[in-house]
Amino acid sequence: MKRVLIIGIGAGDPDHLTLQAVKAIAAADVFFVLGKGSGETSGEVPGEGSAHDLVRLRRNVIGAHAREPYRVVEARDPERDRTGDAYSEAVEDWRARRADVYERLILDELGQGQTGAILVWGDPSLYDSTLAVVDEVLARGSARFDHTVIPGVSSVSALAARHRVSLTRVARPLQVTTGRRLARAIGAGTGPAGGSDEFGDVVVMLDAHCAFTDLPDGDDVDIYWGAYLGTPDEILISGRVRDVAERIRETRAQARARKGWIMDTYLLRRAPEAGERPPSGTGVS
Amino acid sequence: MKRVLIIGIGAGDPDHLTLQAVKAIAAADVFFVLGKGSGETSGEVPGEGSAHDLVRLRRNVIGAHAREPYRVVEARDPERDRTGDAYSEAVEDWRARRADVYERLILDELGQGQTGAILVWGDPSLYDSTLAVVDEVLARGSARFDHTVIPGVSSVSALAARHRVSLTRVARPLQVTTGRRLARAIGAGTGPAGGSDEFGDVVVMLDAHCAFTDLPDGDDVDIYWGAYLGTPDEILISGRVRDVAERIRETRAQARARKGWIMDTYLLRRAPEAGERPPSGTGVS
Ligand SMILES: C[S@@+](CC[C@H](N)C(=O)[O-])C[C@H]1O[C@@H](n2cnc3c(N)ncnc32)[C@H](O)[C@@H]1O
Ligand SMILES: C[S@@+](CC[C@H](N)C(=O)[O-])C[C@H]1O[C@@H](n2cnc3c(N)ncnc32)[C@H](O)[C@@H]1O
Repeated sequence: MKRVLIIGIGAGDPDHLTLQAVKAIAAADVFFVLGKGSGETSGEVPGEGSAHDLVRLRRNVIGAHAREPYRVVEARDPERDRTGDAYSEAVEDWRARRADVYERLILDELGQGQTGAILVWGDPSLYDSTLAVVDEVLARGSARFDHTVIPGVSSVSALAARHRVSLTRVARPLQVTTGRRLARAIGAGTGPAGGSDEFGDVVVMLDAHCAFTDLPDGDDVDIYWGAYLGTPDEILISGRVRDVAERIRETRAQARARKGWIMDTYLLRRAPEAGERPPSGTGVS
Repeated sequence: MKRVLIIGIGAGDPDHLTLQAVKAIAAADVFFVLGKGSGETSGEVPGEGSAHDLVRLRRNVIGAHAREPYRVVEARDPERDRTGDAYSEAVEDWRARRADVYERLILDELGQGQTGAILVWGDPSLYDSTLAVVDEVLARGSARFDHTVIPGVSSVSALAARHRVSLTRVARPLQVTTGRRLARAIGAGTGPAGGSDEFGDVVVMLDAHCAFTDLPDGDDVDIYWGAYLGTPDEILISGRVRDVAERIRETRAQARARKGWIMDTYLLRRAPEAGERPPSGTGVS
């Protein structure tokens, strides 16, 4: 039987790697790396820089932990149509083409009894297509293999750790959503949580347009923003949205221009009303 | 200056530890361990077994990665009032008493220039009080120290990895909530997401009462359930809620009776309607 390991490698710091991931990498015979346009750039067209930096990061992780003999097989990631309005359809189509690539790699590049590895940014369960793509490859039936998923530190956990805040408050929910959804919710006047009856805490990913800048002025919302988390380029800004929104927007634009790509995420939390518990009431263990 | 490291240790598997956590543990002079009734048991009164097993797990992690010379200081975790209705108040009160304990430990047991470590289950940002307690200690002003947070693999990531599913679907939000909230939302007829305009995917933690068993029969919801994730006792069950709810309830009751405690969590996902994309459409990377 062939074996495929889908390994979460954490969100930027090579030391985010878990011992389980280190062992999985050491056990792999072949690494599949998709290059150019890996899509990890807030939904924007990734600059050449992004693809390059992110492929290099993966190569460094492999170099540090893989055991000889091993091979790295790089394949071209299909281009994604980022122009159309039909976001989900474009993603579906792109996914099918990604499945073509992985299917071929597993058929041609992975021998019987061998172990292949796919390194996934952050945690494989958060806004990443790899698991769905692998399911699609399996459903087609031509490539046969076992697969195992190794969880990782997500950029969401990294964000909270760097700001030293809890994502959750006692007995309250947390919403994880995308920039598009947040923008739509704000547009519809339903509040960040998007029609939820009360403002829970909201983590926003994949936001290319700083949707938080459109929050109504009267809203007393705190933001904890982080870019390039876990990397030497990390930037952290926090404060009341109306005080720091412009600064975040400018910092983000400058950083993006400088590096050619950006990855950022943030937590929005309504400040407590008078008489309410302070936001430091952040968890129950 | 004194330094305190708040270290996420992952959700059950000692190999969930990140390299960053391993290094942080190796750098610590003193470990603060709160024993008995650590509250990590679905909000139920923890059996003796729970406190014992969980303290032992932490001790094993320390034994494996700490560097001599180091000390382990165990303190008694304040009892939490789990009887009253005023859940949040009880938690606040308990937190203040926990702050008393940590304040004393940092004042009395941590020398100038030394590094203390607190090991936190899973990721410190998810339904854990440690960060809020440490903020409270700092706000009091008597114990002065720097603190750093090390993110960890959460039980949510572990759940998804073991079921090999993505938590998110293309362009859809994820809600993380508690058993109490889910029960309330179902009672109010607002659906698992609790008043949200559409059913996103929902992860439920801290559910002592199998709230999913109260989902209306007509609801085509899939559940991915896991208990003792990452440990040798791990149990996984998945399927349509109406098909597997009873089995989960029984399995859970038996396991809890056998071990004296349980930790479980689950993902709820509405099955796609006719014409909709299948649930394998689970992410965008
Ligand atoms: C395609 S998603 C993948 C998320 C990944 N699976 C995880 O667990 O973090 C990419 C989004 O994650 C967030 N992200 C990932 N890494 C990040 C980092 N190092 N700093 C800030 N945001 C990051 C950004 O919001 C980015 O748009
Ligand atoms: C107080 S919260 C702490 C969560 C933790 N900080 C994390 O990141 O997983 C405890 C809840 O987490 C979930 N949990 C933690 N560890 C688990 C495990 N190994 N298996 C299943 N559920 C777990 C359960 O829902 C439990 O009620």
